[in-house]
Amino acid sequence: MLAVNLKAYKEAIGNRALEIAKAAEKVSEETGVEIVIAPQHVDIRLLSENVSKVKIFAQHMDPIEPGAHTGWILPESIKEAGAVGVILNHSEHQMKIEDLEKAINIAKKLGLVTIVCANDPVTARAISSLNPDYIAVEPPELIGTGVSVSKAEPEIVKNAVNMVRQCNISTKVLVGAGISTKEDVKAALELGAEGVLLASAVAKAEDPYTKLKELAEGFMK
Amino acid sequence: MLAVNLKAYKEAIGNRALEIAKAAEKVSEETGVEIVIAPQHVDIRLLSENVSKVKIFAQHMDPIEPGAHTGWILPESIKEAGAVGVILNHSEHQMKIEDLEKAINIAKKLGLVTIVCANDPVTARAISSLNPDYIAVEPPELIGTGVSVSKAEPEIVKNAVNMVRQCNISTKVLVGAGISTKEDVKAALELGAEGVLLASAVAKAEDPYTKLKELAEGFMK
Amino acid sequence: MLAVNLKAYKEAIGNRALEIAKAAEKVSEETGVEIVIAPQHVDIRLLSENVSKVKIFAQHMDPIEPGAHTGWILPESIKEAGAVGVILNHSEHQMKIEDLEKAINIAKKLGLVTIVCANDPVTARAISSLNPDYIAVEPPELIGTGVSVSKAEPEIVKNAVNMVRQCNISTKVLVGAGISTKEDVKAALELGAEGVLLASAVAKAEDPYTKLKELAEGFMK
Amino acid sequence: MLAVNLKAYKEAIGNRALEIAKAAEKVSEETGVEIVIAPQHVDIRLLSENVSKVKIFAQHMDPIEPGAHTGWILPESIKEAGAVGVILNHSEHQMKIEDLEKAINIAKKLGLVTIVCANDPVTARAISSLNPDYIAVEPPELIGTGVSVSKAEPEIVKNAVNMVRQCNISTKVLVGAGISTKEDVKAALELGAEGVLLASAVAKAEDPYTKLKELAEGFMK
Repeated sequence: MLAVNLKAYKEAIGNRALEIAKAAEKVSEETGVEIVIAPQHVDIRLLSENVSKVKIFAQHMDPIEPGAHTGWILPESIKEAGAVGVILNHSEHQMKIEDLEKAINIAKKLGLVTIVCANDPVTARAISSLNPDYIAVEPPELIGTGVSVSKAEPEIVKNAVNMVRQCNISTKVLVGAGISTKEDVKAALELGAEGVLLASAVAKAEDPYTKLKELAEGFMK
Repeated sequence: MLAVNLKAYKEAIGNRALEIAKAAEKVSEETGVEIVIAPQHVDIRLLSENVSKVKIFAQHMDPIEPGAHTGWILPESIKEAGAVGVILNHSEHQMKIEDLEKAINIAKKLGLVTIVCANDPVTARAISSLNPDYIAVEPPELIGTGVSVSKAEPEIVKNAVNMVRQCNISTKVLVGAGISTKEDVKAALELGAEGVLLASAVAKAEDPYTKLKELAEGFMK
Repeated sequence: MLAVNLKAYKEAIGNRALEIAKAAEKVSEETGVEIVIAPQHVDIRLLSENVSKVKIFAQHMDPIEPGAHTGWILPESIKEAGAVGVILNHSEHQMKIEDLEKAINIAKKLGLVTIVCANDPVTARAISSLNPDYIAVEPPELIGTGVSVSKAEPEIVKNAVNMVRQCNISTKVLVGAGISTKEDVKAALELGAEGVLLASAVAKAEDPYTKLKELAEGFMK
Repeated sequence: MLAVNLKAYKEAIGNRALEIAKAAEKVSEETGVEIVIAPQHVDIRLLSENVSKVKIFAQHMDPIEPGAHTGWILPESIKEAGAVGVILNHSEHQMKIEDLEKAINIAKKLGLVTIVCANDPVTARAISSLNPDYIAVEPPELIGTGVSVSKAEPEIVKNAVNMVRQCNISTKVLVGAGISTKEDVKAALELGAEGVLLASAVAKAEDPYTKLKELAEGFMK
């Protein structure tokens, strides 16, 4: 899985988010690699209605049931808008443990796939106990640096994969932070990860199609 | 101004939000009353692209500049999606003072109208110093009760109007909490308010058009 | 371990906290049961300087290093004041996962014992991955009710003990929520717990000595 | 008023906090200047029991009534421990508006003096509407720099003094951020402030007595 977090980058809202999603759709068709795009909440429906081969995820949702929760993100609403999954506990949007457990349970009930972020192998192991579908290990000190964790600190990835398997064999591990080239992707997969989570390398790319294509090639044997 | 907050009510997401917005558009055309609809973030574009006589507001936005802010609501993104204003500091989504000031400043820069909530006249006066366009006075103990502040506690509305005028004459006062009938609207206007902010009375109405029409008539002489 | 959380009860601050700690000291001497008292932060030194057979814990500390952190609880400062341990992630004071991990690591470095609260067996297992000394399982719906989890929902305690052992054998399990009698303590121990965490039953007792003595007897064979 | 915030500096906890308080007591006796010392919560009682000519403030308190609030700072408990006032809304510990209003009201009820921090003149005016005893204007970009706001940006101080007087004449203005010399104090007073709030210049001073004496001389004609 190649997951792209568009964050709140000005280069990646509205029609520009749609362009990135369309580029991703093309790359997914050409390479068979599963691609996830996580736009700003207001752009979820725009993307889900205009691309079909790419999975649209929310960047966050709040652990709430329908009701009086002004301004919070209702899980049912992101699903209704076409999201098929959600990123939770990103280092830029950390959650309390009970809230994370509640959000994962709501996601399961609604059929939303969960990618939960962890900043080191120990937290990754803890989070795996909550049974998310994916854990993305992202050392915060590498986020946005262009220095990939899979190359700079391969031990972190190996440890994360091992620690997650100690408690829970069904959660899959993604590698995040600093991924920006085909080699970063390859290195991540060789260390036992099943995909990558990245942001600026694609969101700020002048040509998202070319960048996505390069990254997708990292998944080829 | 008749402002309707759809909160995270399950009766008011997706197409149901759109139906409410269309009913509001019809009522606005028939009565000339300015109506605001604030849906879940994922529904902002759906509404703004399908109704034109109603103002679409966000229920909240985060005080952030474009950049690496996973899962937070970027002001630019709600504007791009068609919102023309934003509710801030709702009692269900309270903000720190510095964040509120920052959000109001960002809104001004982007041309978004601000409705800032306050739970009593003293906080209303404090918030008016930050120069929002509207202040909505909503005693939290009356929210969702069907007992309107304008009838149950007219002193609160009068005091709020007076206190806001002490510091700042351009901010307008809306009355919230428990508004559900034409009489509630009339009472609010007689006390010096320039409109109302309400939620469940419309969001959960079996027939939103009829309810909105009744409330709009409260604005007629 | 019999751990008593004095929370912010007005019956348990200042000299009244000291009286409870002295009663606990007497009971500990008479019965050999290890007793922990967790007072308000301002009372830590008062208790630690005036009782020696009871362990004084903080009710919380913030995951910070010394520096510019106005109004936050510095771990070094609670240790310097005589605390030997700390409660973390109480359901009334929940923490983000990364903060909890950081706080546990700081506690280890300073030699402070950690009791981390969890509201169900799944979260207990997740938290055990972070290697605290104790996990206190406290279903929030039973806190303060006088209905003890060990009697009302023994499965929760059994599951928590089992789940914690899946990932981590050194963390000990305490049972909280609703513990108020000798029988509650006995039931908790029989289910595999190594102690209890309680609050109002002692903090609001007219005669803390008698109540503590009764509870301590629950630890006797 | 010369207010000293000891923050969470390791040079200013426990006995070292007491030394600073004793130095302050001596300076206050020698110069007649009113000095406030705000230590870590665990040190409030240590200081209040051992110095009498200096006012001990808490660095923060939570807007709570006595009850089940594990790990939060109960206003009654800081008062019982000897604090006579409290700093609120420091830029390192920002509060929601409703919480700040509640905390100020609790302080008034308990007879605690309030110093509320604001990071610019507009927020200062807003906060003055909540009727605290003092407002400390502290542009966060100058905190800890040794560049004082009274010298680097005198307009900010003048504007803050004027804006606070627009709405509320009884709140007094302190100047914070970067104050470290006698000249900084003099400049602040000339601009209309009634005192200063500072931290590292005293908390990290090798000789707190000499530094406090110098600063106190800034209050002399």
